[in-house]
Formats: sequence, structure tokens, C-alpha cells
Amino acid sequence: MQSLYPSILLQHAIDEFAKLPGIGSKTALRLVLHLLKQDDQTVETFADAIRKLKKEVKYCKVCHNISDTETCRICSNPRRDASIICVVENIRDVMAIEDTLQFTGLYHVLGGVISPMDGIGPSDLQIASLVERVKTGNIREVILALSTTMEGETTNFYIYRQLEKLNTKISTIAKGVAVGDELIYTDELTLGRSIVNRVPFTGK
Amino acid sequence: MQSLYPSILLQHAIDEFAKLPGIGSKTALRLVLHLLKQDDQTVETFADAIRKLKKEVKYCKVCHNISDTETCRICSNPRRDASIICVVENIRDVMAIEDTLQFTGLYHVLGGVISPMDGIGPSDLQIASLVERVKTGNIREVILALSTTMEGETTNFYIYRQLEKLNTKISTIAKGVAVGDELIYTDELTLGRSIVNRVPFTGK
Repeated sequence: MQSLYPSILLQHAIDEFAKLPGIGSKTALRLVLHLLKQDDQTVETFADAIRKLKKEVKYCKVCHNISDTETCRICSNPRRDASIICVVENIRDVMAIEDTLQFTGLYHVLGGVISPMDGIGPSDLQIASLVERVKTGNIREVILALSTTMEGETTNFYIYRQLEKLNTKISTIAKGVAVGDELIYTDELTLGRSIVNRVPFTGK
Repeated sequence: MQSLYPSILLQHAIDEFAKLPGIGSKTALRLVLHLLKQDDQTVETFADAIRKLKKEVKYCKVCHNISDTETCRICSNPRRDASIICVVENIRDVMAIEDTLQFTGLYHVLGGVISPMDGIGPSDLQIASLVERVKTGNIREVILALSTTMEGETTNFYIYRQLEKLNTKISTIAKGVAVGDELIYTDELTLGRSIVNRVPFTGK
């Protein structure tokens, strides 16, 4: 079959872009043609940044977050509270929580959640290393901050079972009505949960 | 200022992706993290496809479409009608028109439209080579198939002025109500134009 595109090189580049999540062949074409219009140096820089990231990136040996150093900036920051660990799915969650400026402890990046459908079991995730951290470190509290999906809840439960004998407080993020949301647009599961888990009104 | 991201390498890769049109920093992050999860070979192939395209791509010496050969597949196809040239802005338009299966002539890719705001004048486009093609070839008709924007219309007019003495039929694509559209949702300029440019009803 003849290629859809006027050039095999173009086709290859489009195919590669179209493998990225959320990028269809039309968007891929647009992106590739944009790159083609840039000068050689720009394109070289683009290709190099990706290649270099893949080759040279490190993962923090404590929390498994992406890092340029053996121990990441957060884990090696003496002003962070090393006795609280927030367990998250991936590095995007670390960034999202960091953006809130509400958390001063350390993280533990699991690398995903337990999902039998996708063939991801506990041993594919950084769960053993979390248990080890809690066993050997002086950890006051573990906050489970996983997605509030079935897989997230399953993973929460699995981790809870591993940690419950270790005499460490285990908490999970509050679920409820989003700040700024109108009640009428909140799904009933969330609304129900927000009533059951109501908190004392402090006037703040 | 400290980087927003936990790694400078990650930051660089995200910055590069975020330079692409329609890709914000959140999408860039998602794409980069996706690549990071793939194996080395996949990432290498991705980076290589882009670099290779940029280095080795050719442009057809007749119509300036992207090509793997000196003369592109369309221009070198003996079954295409070489006496009709369809003038388009870029290679995406060539592909879009090819997809319709309604055109059997050749193309001429301008590489853009005249846009003083963006500093693009006639000499930045493949207009002189179009005039040369019409002068030296045996061209029966030139179809102007540019965007129906102010810039497209300006470019149409400029090309028309260059070609009008050359005794070649010059036409432009029909503007009107899109096939399958309801009149009530058609903007009034388009609807007005579709009435002025009405065509005989042939029962087909």
C-alpha cells in the first residue's frame, strides 16, 4: 500500500508522534510540520533533550522521585519533616502536592497503583521499599494520597495491611466537595462521603 | 529561582515539548513522562525519526511539496493531468485535497500566504516559481485553493495579478454552505456568498 504521506521520512516522524498519549495522526502531522519549519539547531535541541533525559535521568534512592542527584531535592532538604511520608502514584502527584504549599514532609513514589487488569501487582510498585522506610526510619505518619479510584483504594488497603503492625499513624487524604463547587453539581458518592466525614466548623 | 520540576533534564525535555503549537506545559509533562516509561530503543527511535526527517527531507523541485525524491510522487505520476495546477498554502492542504479523490491535476505549494503582520511578503513564498511554471509549461488552468481568510484573499489577488496576462484560466475553490450543515448555523457571510454564487440544479 502506498503511504498516506508524500514522504516516508515524514510518515515515520508522524507515526512516532502519534504513539504519544492523546496525540492523533492529525495533531502529529501538525507538530511534525512545525518542527520541520524550525532551523536545524532547534530540531537537534528538541531530539537531544528527550534522548538525554532518557539516558541520564536518575530516581531518588529514598523516595523514587525523578532527580538529577542520588537523593532528590526534597529528601535532602533539612527543613522538610522527615517523619511524615506522603505516598503518591507518580511524580506528577508530587508536583501537584508541592504546588499546594500545604505539605512539608517527604514523599514516596509508588510508580503506579495495583491493577490486575493491567497486570500490575504489588511487586511492580515501590511498596516493599516503603515498608522498609517505615520500619527503619523514625516515621510518625504515612499519608496515603492515591487516586480515589477502585485501583487506588485497593492499593491503599494493601499498603495499610503491610503497615498496620508497625505502630505508625496511617491517614488518607480527605474526600469531599471540591472547593468552589456547588453541591448540586457534586456526584452523590462524593457528597455522601463529605457528609459522613464532616469536620468541626472552626469559623476559619 | 529553583526549577518547578524535580530534575533539570526533565525540565529541558518539557520545555522543548511545550514549544510545540497547542502543547502547554501540563501536556508536555504528560508526554515526557510517557516517553520516560518506554524502553531506551523506543525513545531513541522517536528522537531519531525527527532528526532524520529534518536532515534528509527533500522538497519537490516542481511543486515544492515534501518528497523523498527530487520530483514528488504526484508530479512524476504520468496519470495526473499536468495542465491543471492547484495552488495551496502547505503540504497539509495537498493531503486534504488528495483525500477527497476529486482532483487529478498537480499542485503548487506556496509555503504560506502573504501576511504583512507576520512579515511574510510575496518573495517569501513560491510565487515566482508558480509564475515560471505557468509561463513555461502548457498550463490550462490554475486553481487557487488558499484559506478563505483576509491573507488568503490577498494572496489570491496578488497571484491573479501576476498570472492574468498569461492566458490561463484562473479559478478559485467554491465557497458556500458546508455539505451536511444546516443553514441556520451557517455564518451570514458564507450563506450570502452561497446565494450569490448559486449553481444550476442538475438533479444530481
